[in-house]
Amino acid sequence: MARLVMKFGGTSVANVERIRNVARHVKREADAGNQVAVVVSAMAGKTNELVAWCKEAAPVYDSAEYDAVVASGELITAGLLAIVLEDMGLPARSWQGWQIPLITDEAHGSARIEDIDGTKIVESFKRGEIAVVAGFQGIHADTGRVTTLGRGGSDTSAVALAAALHADRCDIYTDVDGVYTTDPRVVPKARRLDRVSFEEMLEMASLGAKVLQVRSVEVAMVHNVKTYVRSSFDDPAEPKQGTLICDEEDIVEKQVVTGIAFSRDEAQITLRKVADQPGVAAAIFVPLAEANINVDMIIQVVSDDAATTDITFTVPGAEYDRAKALLESRRATIGYTALQGAPDVVKISAIGIGMRSHSGVASRAFKALAEKGINIRAITTSEIKFSMLIDEAYTELAVRTLHSLYGLDAKG
Amino acid sequence: MARLVMKFGGTSVANVERIRNVARHVKREADAGNQVAVVVSAMAGKTNELVAWCKEAAPVYDSAEYDAVVASGELITAGLLAIVLEDMGLPARSWQGWQIPLITDEAHGSARIEDIDGTKIVESFKRGEIAVVAGFQGIHADTGRVTTLGRGGSDTSAVALAAALHADRCDIYTDVDGVYTTDPRVVPKARRLDRVSFEEMLEMASLGAKVLQVRSVEVAMVHNVKTYVRSSFDDPAEPKQGTLICDEEDIVEKQVVTGIAFSRDEAQITLRKVADQPGVAAAIFVPLAEANINVDMIIQVVSDDAATTDITFTVPGAEYDRAKALLESRRATIGYTALQGAPDVVKISAIGIGMRSHSGVASRAFKALAEKGINIRAITTSEIKFSMLIDEAYTELAVRTLHSLYGLDAKG
Repeated sequence: MARLVMKFGGTSVANVERIRNVARHVKREADAGNQVAVVVSAMAGKTNELVAWCKEAAPVYDSAEYDAVVASGELITAGLLAIVLEDMGLPARSWQGWQIPLITDEAHGSARIEDIDGTKIVESFKRGEIAVVAGFQGIHADTGRVTTLGRGGSDTSAVALAAALHADRCDIYTDVDGVYTTDPRVVPKARRLDRVSFEEMLEMASLGAKVLQVRSVEVAMVHNVKTYVRSSFDDPAEPKQGTLICDEEDIVEKQVVTGIAFSRDEAQITLRKVADQPGVAAAIFVPLAEANINVDMIIQVVSDDAATTDITFTVPGAEYDRAKALLESRRATIGYTALQGAPDVVKISAIGIGMRSHSGVASRAFKALAEKGINIRAITTSEIKFSMLIDEAYTELAVRTLHSLYGLDAKG
Repeated sequence: MARLVMKFGGTSVANVERIRNVARHVKREADAGNQVAVVVSAMAGKTNELVAWCKEAAPVYDSAEYDAVVASGELITAGLLAIVLEDMGLPARSWQGWQIPLITDEAHGSARIEDIDGTKIVESFKRGEIAVVAGFQGIHADTGRVTTLGRGGSDTSAVALAAALHADRCDIYTDVDGVYTTDPRVVPKARRLDRVSFEEMLEMASLGAKVLQVRSVEVAMVHNVKTYVRSSFDDPAEPKQGTLICDEEDIVEKQVVTGIAFSRDEAQITLRKVADQPGVAAAIFVPLAEANINVDMIIQVVSDDAATTDITFTVPGAEYDRAKALLESRRATIGYTALQGAPDVVKISAIGIGMRSHSGVASRAFKALAEKGINIRAITTSEIKFSMLIDEAYTELAVRTLHSLYGLDAKG
């Protein structure tokens, strides 16, 4: 007997018929004698409908009330799944965030989980019940108000619940059957990975792979929750295993490069010959932050005269014009000689824990892209990944080139 | 400064634009310096959608899970109204049943309110906030699970909240502008009543007038809550007062007959020559109750041979065939000589607290209907009303006849 948490996203519970399919997966695990908690998202489209109503209600809305509205979608799915399970003869009950309770901080709209009291759910297991938990939400302990964890937050609900319940594993069911070496829509030869380390998954999620919410991977890593990504559209009687996200130590053969991630819709801004003195970075990035423009990939290079510096960074493509206007209006304060920008760039990243022990991994990529005539606009590296900014038009060519280069293509 | 509870039903909050209109009514009362709690229903159609999903999930479903699902509709409206109010510059916050808390018994699907702790809402008033309360729901104290109060339950939420908060009045906003002497669609000369007593309103609601949930009137009567029925479609700047439901003592001129109510889709069953002995009524009505067939209007008359009795009662028209089949299968146990039925009858009732001090009120009706050739199939009376069963085809004629007879027609 094992204890496990299963999580099903919006497309897996989009209507009652799909909820019935989810119940078959749950039944398989319960029939095998496992204690099962199921975390569910809102039916596909529901959260968007609720968000649209909030925006229609007021252009700038109270985030606590927004949370009270949008958290309702998961309550519906949790109740419906409990009804379907009971109809299949499986004792079940639904749990709302405040009933557990799942305690978060007060950052409405993107709250962080502070504590989950697993006591009542464990008691429920002992009564032979399946616990069906509404994902994406909790409450703030002091105010007693409903909070939500941000889009994709049900992944985090599931992993954190698995940690709180000391579950043997957490299965994240989604509309793909695992984590791939890259997006199969771009590279048909992409392979499903049997295992990927927490660190690699964290980088992949951060760098554009949409299979898991970044925070859920952080939580899984911190609490060492064995997490599987698998498909809810598999035959419930004969499901495939999916991809295990696990501790690096549990991966025997460490790949130099495990996956290629990419993030489109980025824009690059370069400020030339900024004074190389304290406070200059703040003069650039504080106003951008205050305008809610999300800055990624900051690179600073001493310029040719050695007294000034060139600063390059990326912003979301949709924010490019706003960011440019803001920086131009502050040209005197910041003190740069030229603002150069590229509105259509893509960030391509290669990730692999094997990079720790291999040198020259990135330089092979630079060479391969150069041979295809692809210009690299900027580069950043960290211990287990490197990212390159290139023109968006070359996305597919670059991803396929790197995928082949590092031996990730499926055989045959 | 007064303290008041305002309640808005599903058609009044059917979309964000209508919620904005509701907010204008609330703003008028808040701007006048009142402390305001607003109780809202789910957007029109939402509860039906949620109920349909539950039924699709399982033909027979767990009523606690049903409650968890259907109670979500009101959470959405409460949050959206709070957002709109804040956007208008009025501090507001939404309250879910468990946050108040509003405590009910454990009868999921049709729970009764046991206690409302008004402390937190009064504190919220003192901070200058408008309290927006999700109607229709509470929690059971022991299990901590969500309960609902049955269809139309938001009326009861509002009146009970008004009692708990010692509110000066409770305004029930609906799609009509008050309580009428009868249904204006049937009698164009129907008049809006300025005042109606709790007792009369209770009878009217029980006997077919759909303007208020029966239980809400009971609660208003027990706690003597001054309750207005008024229209949410009035101009928020110049609303009409609507109908006050109040203590009998506050009504100066007591009408003999205040209103004519009617309930269609009834069916009549008569069992002939049932043995007039203890246990016979139980033999008939216990099986019907166990089959969830709602029995109304029971009349028992000693038959011509004095040793047996004729028993007449009504059931909902939709249950007529089931009830007949059930009673025929138990003919031997019950022991009747004949079962006679009429599947299409209507119950017409005249209600008025003046009946207490006037005799011969009902006999005038019998005479007037006889003159129109309308056969009365059964009669029941109580202190302030009498009801007659007639063929459904005569509904409009009978209602108009009684409406004129008792001087209820609008002048000119």
